[in-house]
Amino acid sequence: MKGVKILAPATVANLACGFDVIGLSLGIPEDEIFLYKSNTPGIRINKIRGASLPTDPKKNVAFVALQFLLKKYQQRENFQEKKIGFEIELIKNIHPGSGIGSSAASAAGVVFGANILLGNPFSKKQLIRFAMEGERIASGSAHADNVAPAIMGGVTLVRSYKPLDITNLHVPRELWVSIIHPQIEIKTSDARDILKQKVLMTDAIHQWGNVGALVAGLYQEDYALISRSLEDVIVEPIRATLIPAFYELKIKCKEIGALGGGISGSGPSVFMLSKGNYTAKKVTEEMNRVYSPLKVDYKTYTSPINQKGVKWFKII
Amino acid sequence: MKGVKILAPATVANLACGFDVIGLSLGIPEDEIFLYKSNTPGIRINKIRGASLPTDPKKNVAFVALQFLLKKYQQRENFQEKKIGFEIELIKNIHPGSGIGSSAASAAGVVFGANILLGNPFSKKQLIRFAMEGERIASGSAHADNVAPAIMGGVTLVRSYKPLDITNLHVPRELWVSIIHPQIEIKTSDARDILKQKVLMTDAIHQWGNVGALVAGLYQEDYALISRSLEDVIVEPIRATLIPAFYELKIKCKEIGALGGGISGSGPSVFMLSKGNYTAKKVTEEMNRVYSPLKVDYKTYTSPINQKGVKWFKII
Repeated sequence: MKGVKILAPATVANLACGFDVIGLSLGIPEDEIFLYKSNTPGIRINKIRGASLPTDPKKNVAFVALQFLLKKYQQRENFQEKKIGFEIELIKNIHPGSGIGSSAASAAGVVFGANILLGNPFSKKQLIRFAMEGERIASGSAHADNVAPAIMGGVTLVRSYKPLDITNLHVPRELWVSIIHPQIEIKTSDARDILKQKVLMTDAIHQWGNVGALVAGLYQEDYALISRSLEDVIVEPIRATLIPAFYELKIKCKEIGALGGGISGSGPSVFMLSKGNYTAKKVTEEMNRVYSPLKVDYKTYTSPINQKGVKWFKII
Repeated sequence: MKGVKILAPATVANLACGFDVIGLSLGIPEDEIFLYKSNTPGIRINKIRGASLPTDPKKNVAFVALQFLLKKYQQRENFQEKKIGFEIELIKNIHPGSGIGSSAASAAGVVFGANILLGNPFSKKQLIRFAMEGERIASGSAHADNVAPAIMGGVTLVRSYKPLDITNLHVPRELWVSIIHPQIEIKTSDARDILKQKVLMTDAIHQWGNVGALVAGLYQEDYALISRSLEDVIVEPIRATLIPAFYELKIKCKEIGALGGGISGSGPSVFMLSKGNYTAKKVTEEMNRVYSPLKVDYKTYTSPINQKGVKWFKII
């Protein structure tokens, strides 16, 4: 095996009421990553296509995540294996700054691929930790709500960071996702700065009632319960102002059959969940109808939940 | 049928992280209620044994809950059936003020029984609404977190009050409960007054991560995940001060094998969950060991989850 080709999925973090804890993995779009193990020490990013990303290694999430993995690997091997390096080629299909986990896909993809090339020395949980270090570079905090679904697939819940405790939730078979990515810039750090440090107890209780019901709805495959629970009374009212026509989008999509949705990550992408491919496609068309009169470029996607997460193929 | 005998269960509300939303129904203790339909209009409480409860009808939760039901029934029947009344005998085995849903058992029991005697005109959700009106008398707010598990059985989640939206969660077969009731007085209204109106966003996120994981743990029958999720970072740190030796109790019970627990309702009872009857009994013994040197009277119970909730038998 010369190397591995990796498909690293886009992800939706901050699933409505599940702000900062629940995320899911999408089938499309996916980044393509070609990763080669080399005898020349060091990590080299040889090619980036589809986006202009930092070439300074310290600012590149894929580089940083892989560097953490490599350091840990060499510690494990008591620094006996010195002649290890990696060559990376990134084909970015997930637009940076879209709010559907572009940086997480790069970070998750390279650490997942490197683990294969090294003979699987690391657990998925360890890979998530390495990828989180990439996320720290991208957004200023080492969050797991995109890298967890990217690596584990399906719908994931981050119960706690200290210790890191992540669970795969049950995914109803017919759950589909519609995404609209308005091509405006929202910096994760700005989106975080406008949030309040304190929230009303009554709102917090309302939110965790919804989180409990959303999880129950997923396990019971009760789409009506999922729909009623997809409500965020804490973050969405503040961040919605950053996204053109957010409420119109949400209302129209629900009218046409969407279960509900919200802001993906810290935006600007908006996601809607639906029961079945047919409804999800109609919802995506509705997103197009709402946005086409606006003077904003946008992209839309219709995707099933990606149960597997990141995938790999041998390069012979 | 002359009347019905009702067994109305004790309940644990505020299940750790699930403050105000998750509750469960206990097998023991249970109140016994004898309810008779009468041709004499009005509601009469003929006997109360086991506790001194308000005899003023307006202050008696059973009376008030039943009055709401009766009024609604007469509205349904266009006030044609005027000659309906009820006679109540209450045998209280659940100590008022214990924090394990004594008032909820009275309220849930009578409305459940009256519904049987009237030929089941009302849904469980409607019965919960009537019983909530009883709770309003007992604690000042019409909460559902005890009456819901009393009427629906098992473990319940109150997602929302407006509209009322309650779900039964999956209950792992081997989940058992240990209860200690220190016989000190904590008024629900006092316990509520010491809570803060605002909470830290980081704490709120931590709490709803735990709620999501607790619900997932119940569905997956993953006792380790249930154990890790039984954590309340918002209410317990404030209310624990009201209960003698609370943290010692919690630590010792967990050391001996309890999954975790917390304050039942607004206290003073403390509950612990365990996997299996054997461990639950050991945990209850540990509760006794912690409390026996203290100068506080107390009672302990070991109980399975009551999947059925309130039960009824014909009186012929």
